[in-house]
Amino acid sequence: MQLPIAYLGPAGTYSEMAAQIWAQHLSQRLHQSPVLHPYSTIAKALYAVAEGETRYAVVPVENSIEGGVTFTLDTLWQLDQLQIQEALVLPIFHAILSYCPDLASLTTIYSHPQALSQCQFWVEQHLPQCQCIATNSTVAALEQLPQEPYAAVIASTRAAELYGCPILRYPVGDHPDNCTRFWFISCTPAPGGRHTSLGFTLPANMPGALLKPLQIFAERQINLSRIESRPTKRSLGDYLFFLDLEANIQDDRVLSALTEIDRYTELIRVFGSYNVLAATV
Amino acid sequence: MQLPIAYLGPAGTYSEMAAQIWAQHLSQRLHQSPVLHPYSTIAKALYAVAEGETRYAVVPVENSIEGGVTFTLDTLWQLDQLQIQEALVLPIFHAILSYCPDLASLTTIYSHPQALSQCQFWVEQHLPQCQCIATNSTVAALEQLPQEPYAAVIASTRAAELYGCPILRYPVGDHPDNCTRFWFISCTPAPGGRHTSLGFTLPANMPGALLKPLQIFAERQINLSRIESRPTKRSLGDYLFFLDLEANIQDDRVLSALTEIDRYTELIRVFGSYNVLAATV
Repeated sequence: MQLPIAYLGPAGTYSEMAAQIWAQHLSQRLHQSPVLHPYSTIAKALYAVAEGETRYAVVPVENSIEGGVTFTLDTLWQLDQLQIQEALVLPIFHAILSYCPDLASLTTIYSHPQALSQCQFWVEQHLPQCQCIATNSTVAALEQLPQEPYAAVIASTRAAELYGCPILRYPVGDHPDNCTRFWFISCTPAPGGRHTSLGFTLPANMPGALLKPLQIFAERQINLSRIESRPTKRSLGDYLFFLDLEANIQDDRVLSALTEIDRYTELIRVFGSYNVLAATV
Repeated sequence: MQLPIAYLGPAGTYSEMAAQIWAQHLSQRLHQSPVLHPYSTIAKALYAVAEGETRYAVVPVENSIEGGVTFTLDTLWQLDQLQIQEALVLPIFHAILSYCPDLASLTTIYSHPQALSQCQFWVEQHLPQCQCIATNSTVAALEQLPQEPYAAVIASTRAAELYGCPILRYPVGDHPDNCTRFWFISCTPAPGGRHTSLGFTLPANMPGALLKPLQIFAERQINLSRIESRPTKRSLGDYLFFLDLEANIQDDRVLSALTEIDRYTELIRVFGSYNVLAATV
């Protein structure tokens, strides 16, 4: 049986690299053949799972430099039936791909806005003459690259391999510890594990309202590894909050915390408990 | 005397609209002539102020749909001498600009990623045949538009006026209450006012560490209107936090809270107290 996995395409993105790692693990664990399906946006990849078009989706959650991937959190909140199956932390190493033989002759750099900003100081220092142009994905500009002799694309070495494009410089970037956390999403119940993710809205405006849920977890010695606020899109100043807890949802402390938090939140949504896949990449 | 104001250009962006409102107020208040200077990135506009190239900068802080503008928060944190002089909430109304006479013939939509995502459902519903392409700003693609008869740009009506481009549909967007908050930044000390913004990092990992600062404000009945976490860019899971308080820094409660918070934070930076400009746009 074939297992379809949706990811933010096209092939050659870091999301595809993460999807490939999961595909490999799935085939070892389940003796099934995963097939990767590229989608043009994160929202479309997640909707594909919610609507039964694919079984799984691989989506980026946060990057160590750029922060939370807002499309992922917002879509997960909208689609209440999705559950996190596993997490994966992928180290990100960018390359400068170009048919131009030297950096000094380049005039234009194309890439996804996140990749551009992860390399902005490197580009300012080594390519001050270049104009940076945002594209829909790290590989979107690679198809036109053969026609642009003085242009380069910031992308993965995997993209270079797929498009047969020369690597002019590798690795490049502003921060040594660049990595992205991905989630492996499905409609089946989360398997349980050491991490739990949830989101909630608060009844009125914020004053002490956010304090209470944080206090409820702190009182039970449940560690929060992350908090992120997002607009509810209703009006400016109205937020929803995403928390990552270092505990399993079956843990008595978490169960009692969720019961109590229910009284202080407007709407709460648990995206499941899961572990981090220990991947060697 | 001329007062230079930096903004995220080119002319026709919503940042320029915000900068024009401030320019008008400055000329009324100070009887000086502000001159607007476009910069290609938010970081460059803020560095221009820090390095004395311009007196002021106008930067977007958060949008009611897309959330925090990460470049603004990250750069403000890096440049410790910048202070917030005033805030402004600008309603955002997008228009579809095109030389094409009807929506049905369009094949491509260009815009800044934020504008694209603020209109994504509208585009899916009314322009399902179109490919969306991200550009560096809402107006970056307008110059080439006369050469692309089946393309459109999502931008402001001000951009349409500046580039002499026909408005095909107005207003468009997914959410009725779309607005963006801007800050007016300078190196001079903040004037004081009903809002205070600050940022801090925490000494170790998060567990109860974030709880303490929030508790310190709550105990003093200081309302938090916003909290936003950003990566410190050191490693995944290491965050800094931005808070907006509804109080003046000269308020005794705030002064005592800051003294106490100092013991629980690694580094704290106050961006000043300021009011919101009541603008009619």
